[in-house]
Amino acid sequence: MRNETHRLNIVRVSGTTATRQSDVIVRESPVTIFLNDVDLVSLLCSPKDLEYLAVGFLFGEGLIKSKKEIKSIFADKKDGVVWVETVGHKKIHENILAKRFITTGCGRGFSFVDSAEYSKILKANRGSKIPASSVASLMKELQGKSVIYRKTGGVHSAGLANAGGIVIFNEDIGRHNAIDKVLGERLLKGTKDDNLVMITSGRVSSDILIKAARGRIPIIISKSAPTDLAVSLARELGITLVGFARGSRMNVYSNEWRIATKPRHK
Amino acid sequence: MRNETHRLNIVRVSGTTATRQSDVIVRESPVTIFLNDVDLVSLLCSPKDLEYLAVGFLFGEGLIKSKKEIKSIFADKKDGVVWVETVGHKKIHENILAKRFITTGCGRGFSFVDSAEYSKILKANRGSKIPASSVASLMKELQGKSVIYRKTGGVHSAGLANAGGIVIFNEDIGRHNAIDKVLGERLLKGTKDDNLVMITSGRVSSDILIKAARGRIPIIISKSAPTDLAVSLARELGITLVGFARGSRMNVYSNEWRIATKPRHK
Repeated sequence: MRNETHRLNIVRVSGTTATRQSDVIVRESPVTIFLNDVDLVSLLCSPKDLEYLAVGFLFGEGLIKSKKEIKSIFADKKDGVVWVETVGHKKIHENILAKRFITTGCGRGFSFVDSAEYSKILKANRGSKIPASSVASLMKELQGKSVIYRKTGGVHSAGLANAGGIVIFNEDIGRHNAIDKVLGERLLKGTKDDNLVMITSGRVSSDILIKAARGRIPIIISKSAPTDLAVSLARELGITLVGFARGSRMNVYSNEWRIATKPRHK
Repeated sequence: MRNETHRLNIVRVSGTTATRQSDVIVRESPVTIFLNDVDLVSLLCSPKDLEYLAVGFLFGEGLIKSKKEIKSIFADKKDGVVWVETVGHKKIHENILAKRFITTGCGRGFSFVDSAEYSKILKANRGSKIPASSVASLMKELQGKSVIYRKTGGVHSAGLANAGGIVIFNEDIGRHNAIDKVLGERLLKGTKDDNLVMITSGRVSSDILIKAARGRIPIIISKSAPTDLAVSLARELGITLVGFARGSRMNVYSNEWRIATKPRHK
C-alpha cells in the first residue's frame, strides 16, 4: 500500500551550514488510462483515487458526459493503470487527445466544440450568487484541508463547494489532476447540484476553465492567476472567474454579478 | 503582433468593496507541433519563442538529440503551429507521446529508456561544484529576470546558468514549457557547456528531471518542491537536485557533494 507522501533523508542548507535530516516529500506515479481498450493518456499524478482521476479526466475532456455511460472501472494501483469501459464500447481514436485543442484548419483559432451548449446552461444559472466574504472563507477552508501541501509543499488542491462549504476535496501533484479528481468523484457520486463553486490553488488556464464548464460550474475561485484565454472563455460561457483570492482581497475577471459586494465604480 | 501580456478591465474586491480597474494578465495560446508532418502535440503556452519551445520539447522528449538532426523549422505564430522537419525525415508514430512514460508491460514500473547513457555522462561530471551561496544568487537572478511574473503572477520562469550567471532565460504559463524553451534555445545556439545549472520557479516532477538529464545538466535548482520520483531519478542519474531554494536556505535531495558547504552531521 503506497501512501501519498514518502519520508527520505536530505541535506538541509542554511547559509553555509549543511545538516542531514529526514524530510517528507510527495509521491509521484505514472498512471495510464485505457478507455475501451485504447491506451488514451499517461499522467504523472499522486497515487490515490485513480478511479476519480480517470473518470474526471474523461469527463473534463468531453469523452464521457454522465455516470450512466460508464459500464466498468478497474484501477490497478500497483501497476498504475486504470481501465474504463463505456456502455456500447464507443470507438475512441488513439490520437484524440493530441488534437483536442485545434480545429482542423491547421490551428486556425481556438475551438471548444460544445461551447454553445455549456454557455446556454451557465448563463441561465441565476441562483449561484455568493457574497465576497464566502470567497475568502472557501479559500481558507481549502487551505485548511490541504494536509499534504502543508507537509510537503508539493501539491495543488481543488474543491467543490455548496452553500454549506466544501463537499468534495482532493490534492495532487498536478493542478489538472486535482481538478479531474474532484470532478470524477462528483460524477461517480451522482451529485446533481448545478450551483457548485470550484476552488483551486492553481493557475487557471483555458483547459481548467473548460473542465469547469463541462461540469456546469458557474463560479471558479483560484488563489493564483488566470490567463487571458481563460478569462475570454469565462466571459463567453457565463462563468464567474475569481483569481488571486487571498484573505479578503480578490480579482473578479468575469460575470462579477455573482460576487455580492458594494460596487464603487471609478 | 501579439505580446505576452494583455490589459483588460477587471473588478478588484477588498472586503465588501468592489472597484473596476484595468489589470495586466498573461496571454495563453494553443500551439501545435508537427514533426515530419505528424501532428505530435498541442500545448497551451505563452505565444513567444515558439521555435525554442518546439525544439526544446522534441529534445526533452528524446525525439531529437542535436541541432544537426534538424533540417528546417517554421513557426506560424498567428495560427499557433510549428513545423519541424528532421534530416532523413524520420518516421514518427502519432501516439508516441501518449505512451512515453510506460513500458510495454502495461505500466509495470517506470522506464526512462536512455537512462544508462545519461547516468554515465552525469556521474562522470566532476567539474560542476558550486558554493551554496551561488544557489541563492542564481535564484535571486532568476527572480530579477522574471518581468512577466512580476506583472501578472501567471507564469513560471526557467534559466540556464554558467559560472558567470544566467545565460539563457524564459518565462511561460507552463512550467514544462519554460524549461523546453531554455533547452530549445540552448540547442539552437549550439551551447556545448556540460556544466550548466538549471534554475526553475516550478515544482520538479519526474518529467522535468528527465528533460534536464537529456540536457546533460548536472544541477537543478528549484524554488519549489520535488516529487519522490524526481528525487529517485536524480539519485540514480547523478544529478544534484536542490528544492525550496529561498534566500540562503535550501534542501538538497541528491548528490549533495556538488553544493559546497560546511557539513554538520546530526
